[in-house]
Amino acid sequence: KQVFKPMRQKEIKVVKSVMSSPAITVKPNETIESASRILIENGINHLPVVDEQGRLVGIVTSWDIAKAVAVGKARTVEEIMTRKVITASPDDPIEIAARKMDANKISALPVVDAKGKVLGVVSSEDLSKLLAR
Amino acid sequence: KQVFKPMRQKEIKVVKSVMSSPAITVKPNETIESASRILIENGINHLPVVDEQGRLVGIVTSWDIAKAVAVGKARTVEEIMTRKVITASPDDPIEIAARKMDANKISALPVVDAKGKVLGVVSSEDLSKLLAR
Ligand SMILES: C[S@@+](CC[C@H](N)C(=O)[O-])C[C@H]1O[C@@H](n2cnc3c(N)ncnc32)[C@H](O)[C@@H]1O
Repeated sequence: KQVFKPMRQKEIKVVKSVMSSPAITVKPNETIESASRILIENGINHLPVVDEQGRLVGIVTSWDIAKAVAVGKARTVEEIMTRKVITASPDDPIEIAARKMDANKISALPVVDAKGKVLGVVSSEDLSKLLAR
Repeated sequence: KQVFKPMRQKEIKVVKSVMSSPAITVKPNETIESASRILIENGINHLPVVDEQGRLVGIVTSWDIAKAVAVGKARTVEEIMTRKVITASPDDPIEIAARKMDANKISALPVVDAKGKVLGVVSSEDLSKLLAR
C-alpha cells in the first residue's frame, strides 16, 4: 500500500493573523492635539484617517506630528495627513507586507477589505516580533 | 583522506549587521522643536540622547513628541525623554533584539559598545525588512 506524504512546506503567515485590530482611527477635521491624545492613550504610532462613511482617506503618524512641531502652523489632521496610503489586504502573506514597508520606508500599513473598510493596522513591530525568541 | 564537512547550521544574524549607523543623537537641553527637526530631516523616529561625554542618558521618539503635543507645556528634550533606556549590543543575535522590543512594546534599541558609546540604532523596521521578499 502506497502512502503519499505531503511535501513539507513552509507555512504561509498572512497579515490578518498578526495585525492589530480593530483599527483605531481618526477623522480628518480633528485637531492635531486630539490625534496626539489618541496615539498616546493607545500606545500606538499610526492612525488611519477615515471619512464619515468609514472609508480610508489618509494616515497620520507620530512622525507627522513631529513634523508639524518642526514646521509649526498646522492645526488639523487633514493638514498633515498623508493622502496616498499604502495598504495591505488581510490575506496578503506577511512577506509582501514587509516588502511594501521596506520599499516605501514606512513602518505600518492599514489593512483594508475589498470595500476599503479599515480592518486593522499591521506594523513593523507586529512583524519583527515574529523573529523574537 | 578524510574530509570534515562542517554541519549546516542556521546563520546567526547579529544586530550590527542590520542597525542604522552612525547614530544620530541629540543633547538633553535641546528644544523639542529642534529634536523634531532632526527626526524629520533624517526620516527617523528615534533619537538617543547623549551627554557632553557622548554617554547615553535617554531616548526621545516621535511618540514622545506627540505626547508633548497632547499634554502641552514641555519645552526641552530632557523634559520628555525616557531615561531608563533598553539597549542592544552590536553582537546580540537579532532574535534577542526582537524579543526586547516585543517584551517592552518599543520599536527601537540604541546599540551601545562596552563603554556605553552609542554605535547605532536597531529598529523594528530594520528587523521586519528581513522578512521581505
Ligand atoms: C512605549 S512605546 C509606545 C509606542 C510604540 N510601541 C513604539 O514603539 O514607539 C513609546 C515610549 O517608549 C520609549 N522608548 C522607545 N524606545 C525605547 C528604548 N529603547 N528604551 C526605553 N524606552 C524606549 C519612548 O521614549 C516612548 O516614551
